[in-house]
Amino acid sequence: MQKHEKAVNQLAKDIFTRRLHAGDKLPSERQLSQDMEIDRTSLRIALKHLESMGVLDIRQGDGIYVKDYTHHAGPDFLQLVVESDDLTAPDSVVDDYLMDEMWEFWGAYFPVLLKMSSKKASPRDMRDLMALLDEELEHVHDRDKIVELDLLAEERIARATGNMVIMLYSNASRTIRRNMVKAFYDRVDDDTVRLHVEIKRALVKDWASGAMTAEQLADHYAQVLEAHRAAIKKTRSSNGAAEAMLEEYKDALDKTGFI
Amino acid sequence: MQKHEKAVNQLAKDIFTRRLHAGDKLPSERQLSQDMEIDRTSLRIALKHLESMGVLDIRQGDGIYVKDYTHHAGPDFLQLVVESDDLTAPDSVVDDYLMDEMWEFWGAYFPVLLKMSSKKASPRDMRDLMALLDEELEHVHDRDKIVELDLLAEERIARATGNMVIMLYSNASRTIRRNMVKAFYDRVDDDTVRLHVEIKRALVKDWASGAMTAEQLADHYAQVLEAHRAAIKKTRSSNGAAEAMLEEYKDALDKTGFI
Repeated sequence: MQKHEKAVNQLAKDIFTRRLHAGDKLPSERQLSQDMEIDRTSLRIALKHLESMGVLDIRQGDGIYVKDYTHHAGPDFLQLVVESDDLTAPDSVVDDYLMDEMWEFWGAYFPVLLKMSSKKASPRDMRDLMALLDEELEHVHDRDKIVELDLLAEERIARATGNMVIMLYSNASRTIRRNMVKAFYDRVDDDTVRLHVEIKRALVKDWASGAMTAEQLADHYAQVLEAHRAAIKKTRSSNGAAEAMLEEYKDALDKTGFI
Repeated sequence: MQKHEKAVNQLAKDIFTRRLHAGDKLPSERQLSQDMEIDRTSLRIALKHLESMGVLDIRQGDGIYVKDYTHHAGPDFLQLVVESDDLTAPDSVVDDYLMDEMWEFWGAYFPVLLKMSSKKASPRDMRDLMALLDEELEHVHDRDKIVELDLLAEERIARATGNMVIMLYSNASRTIRRNMVKAFYDRVDDDTVRLHVEIKRALVKDWASGAMTAEQLADHYAQVLEAHRAAIKKTRSSNGAAEAMLEEYKDALDKTGFI
């Protein structure tokens, strides 16, 4: 990692966790470069970067102020913070609350994407998606692989919308989604993974054969995502054993009528 | 504007419009700083910024390559390009296609936001929203003002979700939405603006009184947004007279049963 990137990560984390509050004035550049043990040029690159992200206000001849990121920053800021976070550390930025907010967002947003995508998808898009799900089934035991395949499937779905704005929004959530999906797969056994992939395959098949409309597909998948969210919420707050997760997930899916 | 910002804007526009293609190798830093008439330090800040946005790949000891932004950039890149764009210029980046993609995205995304928000909104959120709409009614003739009030209302709605991820995503679309909303208000007469605001007030009232569920509110507003999109699409491609826009909008709304 380059020096300026390290400084960006450190300051971003302090702002995100409100160790640095909105309105706070940072020490002078000279002081900062001493405190952070970084040369002035790298520091300046870091500060400009954070300014362009909307979390710092550099006032010439006055000083550098922290802005309220909830008003001014975008998902690139969140992505940066999550990317440099150690999920397993006790002071991880991605706590239960943030994880749940991410799931709430995704549970509401992804079905919209899925609906739009499935209205425009070509038979080839469909075949590619099925091929990815088949590959997932073959790698049930390899969680890292399955996480990447999941992300790839989501990317295919976003691209099938043919809408560039949607693609950019999807790119901005990639790191966040990786953490979310990992949180799920890391906590369940192989049977649950297989169940989950089978559900996705059944949905895609039903939709491809015309047995399900794009609206129904989106509604059904929204329920699956809601089940994920419920399961993760429950097991995180109880220090999540795999069995509890599986039970929660099955309970939640049960209500949807899938199993 | 600072020198590095100017360089960022120029390179971002060239990448966005594909004057610089994915895979292209940029000239050397020395050559670039000459061509763009910018000092090396400012250039380097600009390049690092574009790298962090996911549109450039700086390979030490090799060179700087353009990345495929549709795979790697987020809405912050789009926002940057739109922000520095002159909407009235003939080579504006926001052409009919991009405008329509933005409306398609917003028409699908905002109702989701609205539904989530209206499920959580407090009576105070509601009153604040009504106050904003009342203020819009008083400023029907002042389009710049009404655009800002619209953005403020959308921001209130995003904040009422209480979900930080949603707030960040909303922030990332602010400039884009300003252009979209402006494209609408700039093309209609005062009566149409008044009609539009009245529709919004009626929806909020119906919802606040319990005559409409959060789902119904979201579905209705999705139709209003679809009417906007149809109207803008039609009038932009026909060099948009205000009358045509009004007709289109009324026609589209007519189908929703609002007027």
